[in-house]
Amino acid sequence: MRRQNLSLVLGAVAGHSPLSRADVAGRVGLTRAAVSSLVDELIGRGAVTEAAATASGRVGRPGRALAVNDRGPAGLGLEIGVTHVGACVVDLRGEPRVWRRVERENAGRPAAEVLARTAALATDAQAEAEALGLRVEGRVLAVPGVVPNEPAGLVERAPNLGWCAVRLADHWPDPDTVPEPENEANLGALAEYWSTEQTARTFVHVSAETGIGAALVIDGRLFRGARGFAGELGHIPVQPDGVPCACGARGCLEQYAGEAAVLREAGLTPHEAADPVALLADRAAAGHAATLGALDRAGRALGLALASAVELIDPDGLVLGGAYAELADWLLPSVRAELAARVSVRPWAPQALRPSALGRRGPLLGAALTTVRRIMTDPMLLPAG
Amino acid sequence: MRRQNLSLVLGAVAGHSPLSRADVAGRVGLTRAAVSSLVDELIGRGAVTEAAATASGRVGRPGRALAVNDRGPAGLGLEIGVTHVGACVVDLRGEPRVWRRVERENAGRPAAEVLARTAALATDAQAEAEALGLRVEGRVLAVPGVVPNEPAGLVERAPNLGWCAVRLADHWPDPDTVPEPENEANLGALAEYWSTEQTARTFVHVSAETGIGAALVIDGRLFRGARGFAGELGHIPVQPDGVPCACGARGCLEQYAGEAAVLREAGLTPHEAADPVALLADRAAAGHAATLGALDRAGRALGLALASAVELIDPDGLVLGGAYAELADWLLPSVRAELAARVSVRPWAPQALRPSALGRRGPLLGAALTTVRRIMTDPMLLPAG
Repeated sequence: MRRQNLSLVLGAVAGHSPLSRADVAGRVGLTRAAVSSLVDELIGRGAVTEAAATASGRVGRPGRALAVNDRGPAGLGLEIGVTHVGACVVDLRGEPRVWRRVERENAGRPAAEVLARTAALATDAQAEAEALGLRVEGRVLAVPGVVPNEPAGLVERAPNLGWCAVRLADHWPDPDTVPEPENEANLGALAEYWSTEQTARTFVHVSAETGIGAALVIDGRLFRGARGFAGELGHIPVQPDGVPCACGARGCLEQYAGEAAVLREAGLTPHEAADPVALLADRAAAGHAATLGALDRAGRALGLALASAVELIDPDGLVLGGAYAELADWLLPSVRAELAARVSVRPWAPQALRPSALGRRGPLLGAALTTVRRIMTDPMLLPAG
Repeated sequence: MRRQNLSLVLGAVAGHSPLSRADVAGRVGLTRAAVSSLVDELIGRGAVTEAAATASGRVGRPGRALAVNDRGPAGLGLEIGVTHVGACVVDLRGEPRVWRRVERENAGRPAAEVLARTAALATDAQAEAEALGLRVEGRVLAVPGVVPNEPAGLVERAPNLGWCAVRLADHWPDPDTVPEPENEANLGALAEYWSTEQTARTFVHVSAETGIGAALVIDGRLFRGARGFAGELGHIPVQPDGVPCACGARGCLEQYAGEAAVLREAGLTPHEAADPVALLADRAAAGHAATLGALDRAGRALGLALASAVELIDPDGLVLGGAYAELADWLLPSVRAELAARVSVRPWAPQALRPSALGRRGPLLGAALTTVRRIMTDPMLLPAG
């Protein structure tokens, strides 16, 4: 009960600060004495600060302003992509305070080497955060692969990295800072849900980096599937007898709307640019016919796969995240056209499909926010002052 | 709290009777006095009966045997199919006590006429149940159509009946006995979950009558989608440029694995037999080549659509229900082969796909069991004695 009330008070402060203790009591419906005790505990645990006096112009004894601590507990997010490593620290308000991204080829490198480099970046990011007065309370690592519900700490398969059954603890240099792995598409969806204005509570978030993943948020919660493998949109068959896929099947969406397929169709080679997504966007903006054709074809394949998702799951919304968000101007028309043609047994509004506001920053932000959201839900996770 | 404890005690009696009051107290971890008061209330509400004395050979003062009342509260299930109407009454133990099915062409008939006939069958079934000492406490109607989450009482679309926006209350003769509509595939899945031994708690249940529907049970609960339209497996595209479907799209599963498509491929006409499913099974059992070919083709299309469901939802299991259960001997090999070829980014056991034990009885049974399950969860729904 105290746990819930601490969360309630912290949520009120986060959503409406500056508030005095009296304001909080009025808002959450607890007595002033109870709120004061809860606020004292939140201050002790470093979650909340109390200023000298409010600047409110209201009549009566001025309360002192409470605010969520921006020099206290923080979440560290890490990301291993096929061609980059990232680190991010967000404070308890959810604001990113440290953001690092290093381009680096990770595909086919030994997991131990990739993880050691990620750990080094994590150490740098943490030091930078500490210099800002922040204290890292949790570490989550976004990976482009399958993370089963159990056992904890395992990346079962990350085909685009060449990983199979990698247990992070086996390779991470410092046993005290081993991060918790999570699928990048799941984290991108959560970041979208947590940090942007959402009308949809049940939605499918599609993200593309080198591969294509999706995440299902059902009634505001991530649905990971019976074993943690939900959302493998990239391997939905869109052409039953289509081209072979690296996964062993044929005609998978990834072969039509994945980065390599789009680049090939656009007449580009994957290593032609440091940032192939930006290159595609530039060429499309310049009216390059082959690029426009490739994106149209990708959009139609994506629309076909998403039609299956709509028929099965009946979401409120569909979000195009990751690289797709940056290519949305050219993808949306054909995805929407395909959905309009396919989804006909129920009402479906074209606007229910929209690009993510976070784009490729989503997974890393989601990784960092995971810790913050846990603390907001249960402030007793923080060490007592 | 009392609500929960009533449910706890009723569940103990249902699962382990005969039990004495003392046995129940031992099992649920409440005091004997508390259990006695709860048992008295359950007896007063008609949910439980208490016999004169147990026949147990145990030492000590013999308790009197408690049992779930089989002459008390009951659930009435109704079903409107394309070519039949059904009614069923189950007692509080979940046992079917009345079962009626009348073959009758409903497609294209006015909804008012079909509902009036269903209401007449419901009246007969209820009278038969009352003669057995049962008291109908709730009415649910299984329909082959889309039932939105809201407003209550609406069948939004039932294409194979020719219904569009039918509000049951507008046509049902007696305002006191209007049933609650629910999609037949959903009810089939719930019946499977409630009445058979299940290892899977997250599964996709496919059912076929004239159309093809599916239902998603996630962690033991029916998932209806954001608006109530989840599980439209029949309109998943399996051939992007395939044959036109009645829904307006092309290449929908229903055009390859629906009853009409299978009959056509098998060289039969829909009206050749009173029971086309039984006819298909007979011909397949006799080795009729065209029938075997049609079922193999249907199984491959179904496997393709189910591969999408597995990639997206990651269920523990897949269940073939309705007519598919009766054709499972000939469908399972090709569905399993297709799943094996398509599902390759995760472990997938062929045994995770299995036929329903209930077959075409599922939806009607699920409709009747809905009321019973509600009472078991909240016995205070019953009028106090």
